[in-house]
Amino acid sequence: MTWNQVKRFLIGRPFPLSAEKHERLDKLRGLAIFASDPISSNAYATEAIMSILIVLGSGALGVTWPIAIGIAVLVTIVVFSYIQTIMHYPRGGGAYFVAKDNLGVTPSLVAAGAILSDYVLTVAVSVSAGVRAVTSAFPDLHDYRVIIALAVIVLITWINLRGLRESGTVFAFPTYAFVGGVFVVVSMGLARYFGWFGASPLDLHPEVIAPAADLTGLAYVWLILRAFAAGCTALTGIEAISDGVQAFKPPESRNAAQTMVAMGVIAMVLFLGIAYLATHLRIVPIAENSVLSQMTDLIAGRGFLYYWVQVFTALILFLAANTGYQDFPRLSAFLARDGFMPRWLQNRGDRLVFSSGIVTLAVLASVIVLVFRADEISMLPLYALGVMASFTLSQAGMFRLMGRVGRVPPGTEVETLATTIHYEAGWKWKRIVNGTGAIVTFVVLLVLIATKFLDGAWIVVAAVPALVMLFQRINRHYREVAARLTTLGVDETVLTDVADVVIIPIADVHRGTLRALKYAHRLTKDIRVVNICQNPEGQRHILERWRRFPELTDEAKLIFIHYQYRDILDPLIQYIEHVHMVEFPNMITTVVVPEFIPRSMAEQSLHNQTANLLRRRLLAFPDVVIIQVPHHI
Amino acid sequence: MTWNQVKRFLIGRPFPLSAEKHERLDKLRGLAIFASDPISSNAYATEAIMSILIVLGSGALGVTWPIAIGIAVLVTIVVFSYIQTIMHYPRGGGAYFVAKDNLGVTPSLVAAGAILSDYVLTVAVSVSAGVRAVTSAFPDLHDYRVIIALAVIVLITWINLRGLRESGTVFAFPTYAFVGGVFVVVSMGLARYFGWFGASPLDLHPEVIAPAADLTGLAYVWLILRAFAAGCTALTGIEAISDGVQAFKPPESRNAAQTMVAMGVIAMVLFLGIAYLATHLRIVPIAENSVLSQMTDLIAGRGFLYYWVQVFTALILFLAANTGYQDFPRLSAFLARDGFMPRWLQNRGDRLVFSSGIVTLAVLASVIVLVFRADEISMLPLYALGVMASFTLSQAGMFRLMGRVGRVPPGTEVETLATTIHYEAGWKWKRIVNGTGAIVTFVVLLVLIATKFLDGAWIVVAAVPALVMLFQRINRHYREVAARLTTLGVDETVLTDVADVVIIPIADVHRGTLRALKYAHRLTKDIRVVNICQNPEGQRHILERWRRFPELTDEAKLIFIHYQYRDILDPLIQYIEHVHMVEFPNMITTVVVPEFIPRSMAEQSLHNQTANLLRRRLLAFPDVVIIQVPHHI
Repeated sequence: MTWNQVKRFLIGRPFPLSAEKHERLDKLRGLAIFASDPISSNAYATEAIMSILIVLGSGALGVTWPIAIGIAVLVTIVVFSYIQTIMHYPRGGGAYFVAKDNLGVTPSLVAAGAILSDYVLTVAVSVSAGVRAVTSAFPDLHDYRVIIALAVIVLITWINLRGLRESGTVFAFPTYAFVGGVFVVVSMGLARYFGWFGASPLDLHPEVIAPAADLTGLAYVWLILRAFAAGCTALTGIEAISDGVQAFKPPESRNAAQTMVAMGVIAMVLFLGIAYLATHLRIVPIAENSVLSQMTDLIAGRGFLYYWVQVFTALILFLAANTGYQDFPRLSAFLARDGFMPRWLQNRGDRLVFSSGIVTLAVLASVIVLVFRADEISMLPLYALGVMASFTLSQAGMFRLMGRVGRVPPGTEVETLATTIHYEAGWKWKRIVNGTGAIVTFVVLLVLIATKFLDGAWIVVAAVPALVMLFQRINRHYREVAARLTTLGVDETVLTDVADVVIIPIADVHRGTLRALKYAHRLTKDIRVVNICQNPEGQRHILERWRRFPELTDEAKLIFIHYQYRDILDPLIQYIEHVHMVEFPNMITTVVVPEFIPRSMAEQSLHNQTANLLRRRLLAFPDVVIIQVPHHI
Repeated sequence: MTWNQVKRFLIGRPFPLSAEKHERLDKLRGLAIFASDPISSNAYATEAIMSILIVLGSGALGVTWPIAIGIAVLVTIVVFSYIQTIMHYPRGGGAYFVAKDNLGVTPSLVAAGAILSDYVLTVAVSVSAGVRAVTSAFPDLHDYRVIIALAVIVLITWINLRGLRESGTVFAFPTYAFVGGVFVVVSMGLARYFGWFGASPLDLHPEVIAPAADLTGLAYVWLILRAFAAGCTALTGIEAISDGVQAFKPPESRNAAQTMVAMGVIAMVLFLGIAYLATHLRIVPIAENSVLSQMTDLIAGRGFLYYWVQVFTALILFLAANTGYQDFPRLSAFLARDGFMPRWLQNRGDRLVFSSGIVTLAVLASVIVLVFRADEISMLPLYALGVMASFTLSQAGMFRLMGRVGRVPPGTEVETLATTIHYEAGWKWKRIVNGTGAIVTFVVLLVLIATKFLDGAWIVVAAVPALVMLFQRINRHYREVAARLTTLGVDETVLTDVADVVIIPIADVHRGTLRALKYAHRLTKDIRVVNICQNPEGQRHILERWRRFPELTDEAKLIFIHYQYRDILDPLIQYIEHVHMVEFPNMITTVVVPEFIPRSMAEQSLHNQTANLLRRRLLAFPDVVIIQVPHHI
């Protein structure tokens, strides 16, 4: 089986470029793909809030509900802001594009760096959390969690390399199964709590209010802020759709915006429902049993519904990891197109997905899984910072854009870098929402950094500027290359002349070297065949054969260089350098390298790599042209 | 610091070829290098015999002494046989050469395969045993024994890569220190046992003779044979000198033979001394305290001499590993010269050592250390088989040679493959010794295989034929290559003609492609510049620039291939194939590949590897010549 057949088997047959439109997502699949990350947050967001509040005693858990409402308001602001973004930036782009268009290059790179690191963490955290769900069910597997996590990453990578729509189909069911399951739990809970439709009342624990700890006002506010920040994990993944507008079927903006709204509504209904019930059913967070699990147990018992919710909790977490596979490669491709990341990140594979980006993400996420030994708890302090930074920049950008929208005379259009704007009624109100959003998310970002800095947030705080510097260095390189390759001001005389000489290094006279010699005759009369000679027998042997082919050898010079050390490339390079620099300065010198081509890698390993090593060293000379004359067995 | 500087720092400055003679060994260093393996066997050989006999009860331990005498006789036979070999094969070679010269190619390959695997095991076993000595002294290090063993292998490898004589100097002292220490212990022991020179008598345990277990005659013989076989570890390494005759200063044969005798005498004096004392001092082998250690303790107490012997036991075991580093690369080089192993194994490095062989051995031994987790006890069943097989073949070969010696008319000479023989008096007696040796070592080999087969000997029994087949396949490959490269019957007309066409694949028109185009003008009028076109803008862009350089482009054809899949190499290769196969069949076609050369590996990673991939695929065509036109930034 050839490599090509293996590839066909694993990846599937290639798609023609014209298939691109067909590979777009409809809204139902788009929701499953893009919403699994924010929706899956419901598996842990309420719990994250309550885990902070419990420090103040169980009496403080009642604050969960107002904090949840606060987060829901924040989500609403962010969703609104992003709908604006989607409508104004139909070619996609999210925070990176908005910041670039409105705030300048450096802020846009900060946004990109921040969110790219968050995408990598999304994969690592979600996969690890999903594996924890699995290993909780099967404790025997606990020792293998790193390997299982890596296997899941490989599986998701493989599905993504096969192409977008298929992954949508594979992934749609569990998202809806999770949403449906939790929705039923929440509805049943509310019905039983309020006694709707004659539902049997819940058997609640007697209300034991532990007194809230004696904290000063400031420390209390600090804890509330920390609880709020912890709950902000509910916001990760919201921006994904705005980067992926082009993944939707046309009309892209409209479909994307509608999906965004649906996502926001579903995620917040579940979130508020869980938070309301968790508060009012007086659930206390404990390590062994998640809040969602306790709640489901209390409302529906340990029956079919309970296991349904648990199973699809694990699955949706793997899907959340998949979100990173949509976003990271796409944003990388945007950055690559702008020359801030390696250009090959914009290459699509045979199946029209950004294969290089997918593989890059898989490698980075695997490294994090390995370093943190698949323990998502220790990764969490690194998480959600990036997304909050990009929210801030994105909304600050939209705030500026709305200012420009207000200044466009009605009925006209203005081109920005990345979009076209025209006057909109209500721009002032939109601007206030964006401005508020920018401030709120910025404050949340500061809270996240302050509360998590020593736990690992410093890594992200250090990594993002490093990434920005890397982006800028890459960009400088590409600009230099473009300057060197430009054809502006080039005419034929500028291009270096070709020297009338050919050098052929040989180890022996055989068919391969004779072929090379014959080829060289097409190029010049001045052929120098060079042999590094280490013993007289070798020299005699070569001369003897040399004289046997006068048609080929009469007009060529045979040069023996006697050399007393083992590294024969040194004198060879010196001779070539001499011809190149002294005899024919400022001209192109040609070296013909007779190269023996074995049938296989195994055979290759039986031969010296001298020709290869020579070619590699000759590539260091700007004006040496290398001619490979192959000789197959 | 460049790679070259690092290399200079680690390996030292290169030696000129003329330094080779100076790097030869004198006898004192030669003994240290070659004898450490058989001499170090004294650390465990007697113990190995006694461990088998103890099964019959401590009463059976008295048989140790006669078995030791039997082994000493065997060693004498083998040493005698090898002195014959050294004198008859002054160019070195040992079992491989003797078998090849007298028995044929396949037996010689069996000998080579057997002994090569034994050399690898020598390194793995000796290093592991040495590390065990170290970790016995420092039990905290026990968990790190694999890493320590690998570090020791790296150290020995490094010393050997620096060159032969230096390693002799480094290694001479511990060998003599071990020999001296054990010799003093044995002398003191004998003096005290016999009461010579008024030495204080030993305080022996009361003689408690446990009755020998009730075994039938045959089972008893079987156990005695097993004990004898176990003691045969004393024979490993004896053949080393015969392979390394050329490592000695001239006169090589004489020096090697004298060293061989010295080695045999020293090793056997120590062995017989230890065996005699172990038997007569009624030492019983136990796991925690080696026989040599018990004996030293009993004779000299736990003073300076005791620790001297223990320390140099550990060191000489590492030196025994070093023996493998002399033998494996040298024998590999012989096999490579004859075309049975990859030819690069005969390349000497800058310091005139067989660097590739040294590294190959280090890698193989490290693999064994890793697989067996540095536990030499589990490796032992694989050990000593190879050496016994090569003894058998070598002595069978010498048996035949002596027959030929007897048929040479006195005063004349006969050339064999590898040596010159003439009539020798006493050839019959020599022949009888060789024949006896062959039979005895063959029997021992059968005993080794039979007693250790299931414990791991099967691995060697399976590996040797596999190696022989590999040698033969490699040889077939080299013969095929030679047949393809031969200049016999070649005249100029046989060599393929060069087609008057040049193909230049381009992704864009820039300075790099213009340089390539200019170069192509030297070769032909029929230049085909090919672009794989995936969108109309790209095509327009290229055409626009193309028309700007009429001097270069007017006489070239610009060909656009429209292609709807992502893998642009496919249509390119197809086009080249068409030109090559259909337009110019049976001729050499030239493809000019403009290649962008970045300044560093980091920059390289920012660019597509299309040119590299294209070149690699074109190398599959026997008659496509590739011209790399570099473009540096």
